Amino acid sequence: MKQLLQHCGILVAQEQGFRFLEDAFLGIDGDTIDYIGTERPQEVYDREKDLSGRLLLPGLINCHGHSPMVLLRGVGSALPLQEWLFEKMMPIEDRLTAEDIQAGNNLALLEMIATGTTSYSDMYFEPHTAAENAIACGIKANLSRPVQCFNKEETYEENFRVKESLQLFRDYHGAAEGRVRIDFAIHAEYTCFEHIVRPYSAACKELGGRMQVHISETKKEHDECVEKYGKTPARWFYDLGTFDSPTAAAHCVFVTEEDMALLLEKGVSVIHNPTSNMKLGSGFAPIQRMLDLGLNVTLGTDGAASNNNLNLMEELHLAAVLHNGYHRDPTILKPAQLLTMATRNGAKLQGREDTGALEVGKKADIIALDMTKPHLYPNLDPMALVVYSAQGADVVMTMVDGRILYENGEFLTLDADRILHEAKAAVKRLYG
Amino acid sequence: MKQLLQHCGILVAQEQGFRFLEDAFLGIDGDTIDYIGTERPQEVYDREKDLSGRLLLPGLINCHGHSPMVLLRGVGSALPLQEWLFEKMMPIEDRLTAEDIQAGNNLALLEMIATGTTSYSDMYFEPHTAAENAIACGIKANLSRPVQCFNKEETYEENFRVKESLQLFRDYHGAAEGRVRIDFAIHAEYTCFEHIVRPYSAACKELGGRMQVHISETKKEHDECVEKYGKTPARWFYDLGTFDSPTAAAHCVFVTEEDMALLLEKGVSVIHNPTSNMKLGSGFAPIQRMLDLGLNVTLGTDGAASNNNLNLMEELHLAAVLHNGYHRDPTILKPAQLLTMATRNGAKLQGREDTGALEVGKKADIIALDMTKPHLYPNLDPMALVVYSAQGADVVMTMVDGRILYENGEFLTLDADRILHEAKAAVKRLYG
Repeated sequence: MKQLLQHCGILVAQEQGFRFLEDAFLGIDGDTIDYIGTERPQEVYDREKDLSGRLLLPGLINCHGHSPMVLLRGVGSALPLQEWLFEKMMPIEDRLTAEDIQAGNNLALLEMIATGTTSYSDMYFEPHTAAENAIACGIKANLSRPVQCFNKEETYEENFRVKESLQLFRDYHGAAEGRVRIDFAIHAEYTCFEHIVRPYSAACKELGGRMQVHISETKKEHDECVEKYGKTPARWFYDLGTFDSPTAAAHCVFVTEEDMALLLEKGVSVIHNPTSNMKLGSGFAPIQRMLDLGLNVTLGTDGAASNNNLNLMEELHLAAVLHNGYHRDPTILKPAQLLTMATRNGAKLQGREDTGALEVGKKADIIALDMTKPHLYPNLDPMALVVYSAQGADVVMTMVDGRILYENGEFLTLDADRILHEAKAAVKRLYG
Repeated sequence: MKQLLQHCGILVAQEQGFRFLEDAFLGIDGDTIDYIGTERPQEVYDREKDLSGRLLLPGLINCHGHSPMVLLRGVGSALPLQEWLFEKMMPIEDRLTAEDIQAGNNLALLEMIATGTTSYSDMYFEPHTAAENAIACGIKANLSRPVQCFNKEETYEENFRVKESLQLFRDYHGAAEGRVRIDFAIHAEYTCFEHIVRPYSAACKELGGRMQVHISETKKEHDECVEKYGKTPARWFYDLGTFDSPTAAAHCVFVTEEDMALLLEKGVSVIHNPTSNMKLGSGFAPIQRMLDLGLNVTLGTDGAASNNNLNLMEELHLAAVLHNGYHRDPTILKPAQLLTMATRNGAKLQGREDTGALEVGKKADIIALDMTKPHLYPNLDPMALVVYSAQGADVVMTMVDGRILYENGEFLTLDADRILHEAKAAVKRLYG
């Protein structure tokens, strides 16, 4: 099927940043963009859709999260971190069944799709449920079963998380025409041991996988690692071969200059999670420095228990203003850099070089913003509007591989009523 | 007319913070709340409105802004502050006509009302246009004509801004059954002189007015004042009698301990503008310290040129997470404190002790949030949902003095199409 989106604004990819087309046309052949221009294409399209007053952007890519934690949204707000984690989060997570997790992931999908996310990376247990949900609804997902080890005597072969991770890779990697990818994941240095990390990293490399880890999210984590091993978490992973596969490092709040050099050397992508880093009191990741060094910096929401949303438009906005304040400099992190972080850089992190930008030949992963809202007027600088003014609720169309998943408040591939019903049942089971 | 809002959640005022009622009733007699409870009231109401799935909050109070600057939204993003101000903002502002300003204010009202603001404080020129707009649409507004003086030879009697301010007070103070109040305003220490500030402050006191000023927004402003006068901006205003009237001090990013003691002594309210302080690279106001001292801290958006929104839900959210990150402590600024800042504290700043809280006898200034959205589920902690998860777009009803101004996307007292048309004409005049 060939479809033509017409009379819309378009933020077209160019080598550096974006070029704005007004009253333009975007043609799609199957799952791929085959035309962009301000002239109506000569070719015939099977379907035409008038998008006057809309602005087309590449779909947003949420590179870090724990989607089923929407079921823990708002629990233990404003508690000290350790109390929040050990007394609130973990006891509830211990009660989660696969059914709860599937219900939570579906609830998360509603929120992400409605706010413009077309592809997301997720780290949680029972991830086959997220894989099935993604296959069913058409979103792109890089899913992982994070490896942890709390018993030093346990061997690599005995670790059930490693087994689950490898099984998941066999079962789902490349499913749904590649929309579902399975990544490898090590939760963090402080929740694992070298004798697990080394062979698991080797397995990732051998199987051609991608890796995701948490690195230096808190000062405590960073400092205790240095104390324990005489090296930072980034160096620890580097030395264990983890970065020998394409790796995504979430948070990186307390990375040193040497750490950043290691990440750069190995092409490790960084995931900035500004709301989570603020809300949990972690701190300010040196994002401008990372960009200056040439690191591939992306955006993530983290889980809804520490955000408390899965709305990447909100992360885009927060990242856009936060670092100005911290560095007392309004000139850093330019709008085009930020939108690139949320789109093209995310695609690179996920190993999806065929998406993340509106250009001919890329996959039709597209969102439309309603630019007729009073808060998006006047439209003197579309890029500034997207980054500083637009809201998740301004998304009126979310398309993945040429298929519309969400339009004008309606979910076309998800049964929102059923999902809310199932989420309510899960919440009832969890909290009584 | 007596109306009953039924089957909704309500965040009811209590001495400290809020109490949550589920499936409750709120009765309104004319402009005043006359019943709140979980039982249906015995009395007969003329009109009943089912608000199942909605949560009622006090209307939000945006305590600092320059509303017509929506016409400059997105101009000069990410420029250095001085260049942004002197090369971008001021030359455009010099071209603004009263008609443009009225159009800009109306555009701002659409955004504020749609995102739950029921009362706002505004500092701009040609403020009679904002007064007329407020009278017409029913919002509450504390308006001021900021006094500045750039010529040291000019006398108090000669300053046309002083004249306009006093005239405005005579013309509009208490208009529309008190919904319109006129405040006094001195733009800032660095844009005025003592021989203007002293008599103007005395006039404010004599007339029983309220004052608004900018204080220590940037380090440069703060330090240059100390260099020039040997005292901080707060001490400068204190010594000139400005604080002898009830005063609102915007920003206060760089106030010292001694400054805060002066503000406390004089009962000066502080307006925190988190997005603006971040986006312009100003810095982090010591909000937790101010609250600990007992200062009346409120929230504001500042102008849309430095935000770039007038969405107080966004300020609430940013204030809720920002200070955790800055202080590396997730336990500060509790949700109830934040919502109090956005409502009751704002009412106190504005001299509107009859609003800012849902309780019997207060004015019916009420907003409703749609809690059926996926990102507001589960509802385990309504206060956390409001502060961390809710969006401006979740506001589905905005009521002032018992009159609905906005409901389910429709403006009932403003002609949105005409306002957008007039804003477009103004933009065309301004930018060609």
